[in-house]
Amino acid sequence: MDHLQLIGNIRAKRSFLCVGLDSEIEKIPSFLSEAEDPVFEFNKRIIDSTAKYTVAYKLNLAFYECNGIKGWKSLGSTLSYIRNTYPGIMVIADAKRGDIGNTSKMYAKAFFENYDFDALTVAPYMGEDSVTPFLTYPGKWVILLALTSNKGADDFQYHNEDGIKLFERVLSLSKKWGNPGNMMYVVGATRAEMLKEIRQIVPDHFLLVPGVGAQGGSLKEVAKYGLNNNCGLLVNSSRGIIFTDNSPDFALVAGQKAQELQEEMETYLREKLFI
Amino acid sequence: MDHLQLIGNIRAKRSFLCVGLDSEIEKIPSFLSEAEDPVFEFNKRIIDSTAKYTVAYKLNLAFYECNGIKGWKSLGSTLSYIRNTYPGIMVIADAKRGDIGNTSKMYAKAFFENYDFDALTVAPYMGEDSVTPFLTYPGKWVILLALTSNKGADDFQYHNEDGIKLFERVLSLSKKWGNPGNMMYVVGATRAEMLKEIRQIVPDHFLLVPGVGAQGGSLKEVAKYGLNNNCGLLVNSSRGIIFTDNSPDFALVAGQKAQELQEEMETYLREKLFI
Repeated sequence: MDHLQLIGNIRAKRSFLCVGLDSEIEKIPSFLSEAEDPVFEFNKRIIDSTAKYTVAYKLNLAFYECNGIKGWKSLGSTLSYIRNTYPGIMVIADAKRGDIGNTSKMYAKAFFENYDFDALTVAPYMGEDSVTPFLTYPGKWVILLALTSNKGADDFQYHNEDGIKLFERVLSLSKKWGNPGNMMYVVGATRAEMLKEIRQIVPDHFLLVPGVGAQGGSLKEVAKYGLNNNCGLLVNSSRGIIFTDNSPDFALVAGQKAQELQEEMETYLREKLFI
Repeated sequence: MDHLQLIGNIRAKRSFLCVGLDSEIEKIPSFLSEAEDPVFEFNKRIIDSTAKYTVAYKLNLAFYECNGIKGWKSLGSTLSYIRNTYPGIMVIADAKRGDIGNTSKMYAKAFFENYDFDALTVAPYMGEDSVTPFLTYPGKWVILLALTSNKGADDFQYHNEDGIKLFERVLSLSKKWGNPGNMMYVVGATRAEMLKEIRQIVPDHFLLVPGVGAQGGSLKEVAKYGLNNNCGLLVNSSRGIIFTDNSPDFALVAGQKAQELQEEMETYLREKLFI
């Protein structure tokens, strides 16, 4: 999916919502446990009820890998279902991979060839040659960790050399490796106060922002400091959408939660004169 | 596998060799392509010819993931084969995972419960809560990236706050999260000159050292600066052992390469009076 297509989808849906399919099998409504593939069945229903309000789905690999080969099957079925039923929605593999060049090349093959994901989250610790192999695929995206939403972000990401924090160095160095059409950055919603500064380093890139909802980040703050002229934001909510209800109506409720976020996003996009 | 067991194995085999099964399907001798699972068949023969000289195998996940579900089957078969045929050899999943707490917990489940790996490599960028979920499994190990062997290590790992480089901060903070019985660190052999300094921060921990062989690191230098009284080193060689020969004798040659390294290691262990 290219840059213009993504921006077009955001404009058409008046939404920059990404729904996180962190589909932990223990949290799936119990009546689905009889299905052949409960995780896929759960995802399918969530997707059907939220697709109208969302421009991206993010599949958190850990929640699939922990089910072994079955989990990889659920992952593949979910990706195919989105591709076939809702073409045009971006699908992100949240896998946080990254290794020496010859190894990252194999991860790129795994996620961009064997599975046809649009984007992959990548951890920056190992530097340039761990990231660039993912950037050779036209229409595919690297989403590089910059400032994450968790408490542990404080441990290393603020490490400060001559006034430049590590996450700032990640942004300023790595933006030379790609461009705003093939790279995005992860910035946690719980760090909204840093978005202003981050926008000075990467004014044009999309930011994937997790942490709204269960982790406590504010959508309003994120929009205020993060939106740019091309929108430039994908805001992810996982547990706050997919696990708010455990009854047979769970998908309906997920759709409502997604709609609420879409409507709030629409007001921010209007204020920004993007729509 | 616990600390004492590992040290005992090193003493018994007079070796601190780890063989990296980066079993890229395109590089496997072509006559194996007829096998039902060529990657497993390749691994099996490499393992049979090298087990005598090695105390650990490291499976680089990228080279399995890139083959999709087939790859995960090769991974599982290889792990079971080592467990059943050569019990006591440590098996490392080189997966470089790491995410927010609830997600790392799922990765821990994937590698320590669904698959019974002894150890997992973890990327430190996201800090404490991304690492500690892996430390709750008795007998299992986190191997945290500190200073990697690739060129990109220069991009962020040397980021310097008040004289403390990022990789040093990773070492000094993270060693409080676990102990020398459940944590090791990745330090590239191409950075042997830093081992002296690293040993001042983590004198007692095991270091997993990749980069000897194809990447050009010197075993002699690594042993000189890295060995401690409990050995404290696992030195990995992947391509330099498994892909030096492409004929039907490939496994024999791999065994010879492993033996050469083991013999060199034995001299260093003797000099250190470890054996």
